[in-house]
Amino acid sequence: MNVLLLCRLLGLVAILIGGSMAFSLPWAAWGDWHRERSGFWGLVGAMAVCFAVGAVLRRIGRRARGRLFLKEAMAVVGLSWVLATVLGALPFIFSGPHRTPQARMSPIDAMFEAQSGFSTTGATVLTDVEDPRLVPRSILFWRSSTHFLGGLGIIVLFVAILGQGSAGKALMRAEMPGPSKASQQARTQHTAWVLFLVYAGLNGLLTVILVLEGLSLFDALCHAFGTMATGGFSTYNASVGHFATQPRYNGPLVEMTIALFMFLAGTNFTLLYALAVFQPRRLAHDVEWKTYVAILAGVTAAVVGFGLYHGDFAQNGMAQPTSEEASSIDDAQAGGQSVGGAVRYGLFQVVSIMTTTGFCTDDFDRWNSFGRGVLLVLMFVGGCAGSTGGGLKVIRHILFVKILGLEIEQTFHPSVVRPLRLGGQPVVDQELRRNVLVYFGLIGAIFVAAWLFTVTVEPDATWTDFGHGREHKLVDAAGCVAATLNNIGPGYGVVGPTKNYTNFSAPAKILFTWLMMVGRLEIFAVVVLFVPGFWRR
Amino acid sequence: MNVLLLCRLLGLVAILIGGSMAFSLPWAAWGDWHRERSGFWGLVGAMAVCFAVGAVLRRIGRRARGRLFLKEAMAVVGLSWVLATVLGALPFIFSGPHRTPQARMSPIDAMFEAQSGFSTTGATVLTDVEDPRLVPRSILFWRSSTHFLGGLGIIVLFVAILGQGSAGKALMRAEMPGPSKASQQARTQHTAWVLFLVYAGLNGLLTVILVLEGLSLFDALCHAFGTMATGGFSTYNASVGHFATQPRYNGPLVEMTIALFMFLAGTNFTLLYALAVFQPRRLAHDVEWKTYVAILAGVTAAVVGFGLYHGDFAQNGMAQPTSEEASSIDDAQAGGQSVGGAVRYGLFQVVSIMTTTGFCTDDFDRWNSFGRGVLLVLMFVGGCAGSTGGGLKVIRHILFVKILGLEIEQTFHPSVVRPLRLGGQPVVDQELRRNVLVYFGLIGAIFVAAWLFTVTVEPDATWTDFGHGREHKLVDAAGCVAATLNNIGPGYGVVGPTKNYTNFSAPAKILFTWLMMVGRLEIFAVVVLFVPGFWRR
Repeated sequence: MNVLLLCRLLGLVAILIGGSMAFSLPWAAWGDWHRERSGFWGLVGAMAVCFAVGAVLRRIGRRARGRLFLKEAMAVVGLSWVLATVLGALPFIFSGPHRTPQARMSPIDAMFEAQSGFSTTGATVLTDVEDPRLVPRSILFWRSSTHFLGGLGIIVLFVAILGQGSAGKALMRAEMPGPSKASQQARTQHTAWVLFLVYAGLNGLLTVILVLEGLSLFDALCHAFGTMATGGFSTYNASVGHFATQPRYNGPLVEMTIALFMFLAGTNFTLLYALAVFQPRRLAHDVEWKTYVAILAGVTAAVVGFGLYHGDFAQNGMAQPTSEEASSIDDAQAGGQSVGGAVRYGLFQVVSIMTTTGFCTDDFDRWNSFGRGVLLVLMFVGGCAGSTGGGLKVIRHILFVKILGLEIEQTFHPSVVRPLRLGGQPVVDQELRRNVLVYFGLIGAIFVAAWLFTVTVEPDATWTDFGHGREHKLVDAAGCVAATLNNIGPGYGVVGPTKNYTNFSAPAKILFTWLMMVGRLEIFAVVVLFVPGFWRR
Repeated sequence: MNVLLLCRLLGLVAILIGGSMAFSLPWAAWGDWHRERSGFWGLVGAMAVCFAVGAVLRRIGRRARGRLFLKEAMAVVGLSWVLATVLGALPFIFSGPHRTPQARMSPIDAMFEAQSGFSTTGATVLTDVEDPRLVPRSILFWRSSTHFLGGLGIIVLFVAILGQGSAGKALMRAEMPGPSKASQQARTQHTAWVLFLVYAGLNGLLTVILVLEGLSLFDALCHAFGTMATGGFSTYNASVGHFATQPRYNGPLVEMTIALFMFLAGTNFTLLYALAVFQPRRLAHDVEWKTYVAILAGVTAAVVGFGLYHGDFAQNGMAQPTSEEASSIDDAQAGGQSVGGAVRYGLFQVVSIMTTTGFCTDDFDRWNSFGRGVLLVLMFVGGCAGSTGGGLKVIRHILFVKILGLEIEQTFHPSVVRPLRLGGQPVVDQELRRNVLVYFGLIGAIFVAAWLFTVTVEPDATWTDFGHGREHKLVDAAGCVAATLNNIGPGYGVVGPTKNYTNFSAPAKILFTWLMMVGRLEIFAVVVLFVPGFWRR
C-alpha cells in the first residue's frame, strides 16, 4: 500500500471539502445575525480544520512516488468518503444546531447527517429544520451542499469504476461518449468532464425553473441539490409537500417539476448527454432506460389503482398533527379522493423512492399494504447505472433475471451454454454473470445482518416511547436498513415520511451511517477497508 | 421427452400412494364407528382412485423404452410430487373433515394439507384436530403418514440428486457409505437402502420411546412421523405443548425426547449411519454438522438470554384463550420465569424452527423482537444436506459465506484465484461456486415475489376480521412465505404458533402449496415444469 500517495490524495479531498464550505457562508448574512453567527463561525472553524488537515496530509505525502494501483484506488475512494463524513460533520458539531428543541447534535448525529448528505440518502436526525433558532440557514445550506458534492463524487467515480468489473462496465463500453480512438485516459477525462457538465447544468436549470415558480433562491438551490443528487434533504419539515400547503406556490407545478428532474437524475447521465447533443434515439435503444421507464409506469399505475381502491388518497399531503400547516391544507384536497390527486401523489412518491431521492408529498406509510410493500421492493431497484440514483441499479436487475433464467434452462440442457444477451447483443464480459450474482448475494447478506443487528440492539423504547407498538420493530427495522443501504432516506413507522432518525440509539446510528456509505460506494470500496489482508503487502 | 416412460413411473407412484393409505384404515376401528366411517370410506375411495389412476398410467406406459435422461428424471420428480398432492388430497376430500366447525374442506384446502404433509411443512388449515366429530382418527393418521412418505421421498431423492450439480454433491462424494469400488449404480442403491433403514429405524425407535413415556400408539406414531420427517403435524391443537398440560405425561421429558430426535432428523443421514456403525469420529470431522451444532447452541443461548431479559418466559406454553387446556396449565410454570424453563422452551423452539419441523411448546410470536427476528432468519438456514430438514441447508450457507469472502478478496487481488476450501480440502466442483450463488438468488427472488403477491392478493379482512391490524400484513406475509418456502409451518401473527392457515384466500393457499413444493424439491424440479422449453424436444 502506497501510504504517501494515499495521504497526498486525501489531503486534496480535505482541501476541496473545506473550499466548498465557503459557498455556505454568505447565507449567514441573509437572516438574523444573532441566530446565524453560530453557523457562520462553525463553518469558518470547520474550514480551518479542513485546510489544516489537508495541509498536513499533503505535507506527509509530498514525497509520494508511483501511480495508483487497484488497491490504492479502492483505498482512496473508501477513505476519502470516511474523511468527507468526518470533515463534513464539523460544521454541524461546531455550530451546534439542535437535533430536537431539547437536545443538541452529538458527533455521532453530525456524522450521520453528513454521511446522509454525501451518500445522497437524505435521512435526517433533525426534527425541525424550519426554525432558524434551532438550525442556522448557513448550516442548512451546507447540509444540502453535501448532496451536490456527493452526487458529483458518484458521477466522477462512475468514470473511475468503468475500469473495474462492475455491472455497468459492459454497458458503458458501448455507451461512453467521446472519440473512440483516443487513449483510454483521455477518453476517461473527457467522459468525466461531460458528465460533470450535464450534472452541473441540470442543477442550474432546475434552480432557475424553481425560482421562476416562486421559490426563494435558497429553497430553489437546496431542492435542486436534493433532486439532482437523488438526495432528499429539504428545507421544510414537510419536505416537498410543504409547497402544496402555501397558497403562494403552485403546489402541483413545483411537485411535477421536481418529479421530472428526479426522473432525469435517475437516468444514465451519458444518455442525458446524448439527449443534449440531439441524439434522442440513444434513449430509445437503451434497454436499461426502457426498463426503468416501464417499471416507473407500471408501479405508478398499480399504486394509483390499489390506492384508489383502498381509499389511500382520501386525505393527502404530509399533514403532521403538531405542525401549523396541518390545518391549512386545502379542504378540497383533504376530502374525498380524485384520480388526478391519486396520480399526482402516487407518481411523485414512486419516482421519489425508485430514484432513491426520498422527497415526500404524501405519507406513504399510511398507504395500503401493497403500496407500502411495493415501495420497499422499489428501494432495492434504484436508478440506472451512471446516474446519481442509489439502490442496486436497474441494469443489475435486468441481468439478474436473465442470469437466473439461463441457469434454470441449464439444469435441463447442461450441454447448451447460451451467452448472456442485452438488447440483442451478447455481453462480452465473462465475469459479469458471477459479479451480478455476488452483488445480489452481498446486498442480501448485509441487509439481513444489519436488520437483525438493528432489531437486537435498538431498545423497544424507541418504539413504545413514541406511540408505536414494539411488534412493529421487524418491519420498521427492515425499512431503516433498506432506506439507508439504498440511499433513500424515509422508511416506515418510526422513520416514516413524517418522522426521522432522531430517536435511534448510537449503535444503530453508526450502523446506518456505515450502511449509507456501503450502499453508495457499491459495497467493495468500504468493505475492503475492514479486511486485514487488504492492508498487508 | 419420453412420455411413455414418465407415465409408467408416475403410475408406480400412484399405486404406492394408494397402498400406503391402507395403513390408515385400521385406525377407523379404534374410535366410534359412527364418527369414523366417513374416514374409512373416504380412504377406501381414495385408494380405489389411486389404483385406477396407477393402472391407467402403467397401461399407457407399458410400451415404454429407453432409460431416464436428465429431463425425464426432473419431470418424474416434479410431476410425482404434483400427483402425490392431488392423490393425497383425496382422503380429505372424500371423507370431508371440517376445516373449521362451520366449514368443510374444499379441494384447495385438501391439496394444501396434502402438500404440507408430503413436503414435511406441517402448515395446516384445520382449526381443531382433537374433535373426532370434525376430523376422523383415520384421516388424522393419513395426514401424519404423508410426513413419513414425504421424508422418505426426500431421503431417496437425495441419493438421486447426488448425480446432479447440487451443493451437497461435493460433500457427499466423500461421505457416501458403501464400497467405493462398486459401480455407481450399485453404490447408489446401497446408499438408498442404508438411508431408508436409518430413517425407518429412527421412526420406530422414537415411537417406542414415546409409547414408554405414556403416549398412545396413535400419538406416538404420528409424532414420530412429524419429528423424523421434520414435518410438524401434531394430533393436538397445542402441538407438542399439549403434553405439558396433561398431568399424566412428563411434559419436559416428552419435549426433550422430541427435541433430540428433531436434532437427529436435521443431521445428515449418512452421518447417522456412521454413528450406527460405531464411527462417531465422522461427526467430529464434518464441517457442516459442527456448524449446525454451533448455530443451534449459539442461537439458543441468545434466545434464552434476550428472552429472560425481556421477560418472554414469564408465561409459557401454547395457551389458547378458547381452549380448555388454557386453564389447566401448571400454575407454577405460568407465574414467574426460571432459567430452566427458558432453556426448555427456548431450546425446543430453536431446534424445531431450525430443523424446519415446526412443532411448538411456546408461542414464539409473543417473544421479543430479537427472538422473532432470529427465528425468521433461522427458517432460511434449515438442516444439514442429506437430512429431512428443509430450508437452504447449512452447507449452502457455509459455502455462501466463504464464496463472498473470496470474492471480496478478489476485488483487490484480482490476479490471485484461491480455491474454495471446506474442512481444509479444496472443493473440486468448479460449478459449485456459481450454483450456490444462483440458489441464493433464486430463493431470494421467489421470496420477494411471493411476499409481494401475498400482500397484494390477500384482502385486509384476513387480518382485521380476526383482531389483527392490517399494518401487520407485511411481517405476517413474510412469515407465511418463509414458513412455507422453507417447509417449517407456523409463522407470525395470523399464522403464529397458536393459529393456522384456514382464513387465507384461495389464491394465497395455492401460492403457499406451490412454495412448499418448490422449497422441498430445491426449486429446479418444480420451476422447470413451467418452462415451455423444457417440454420441447
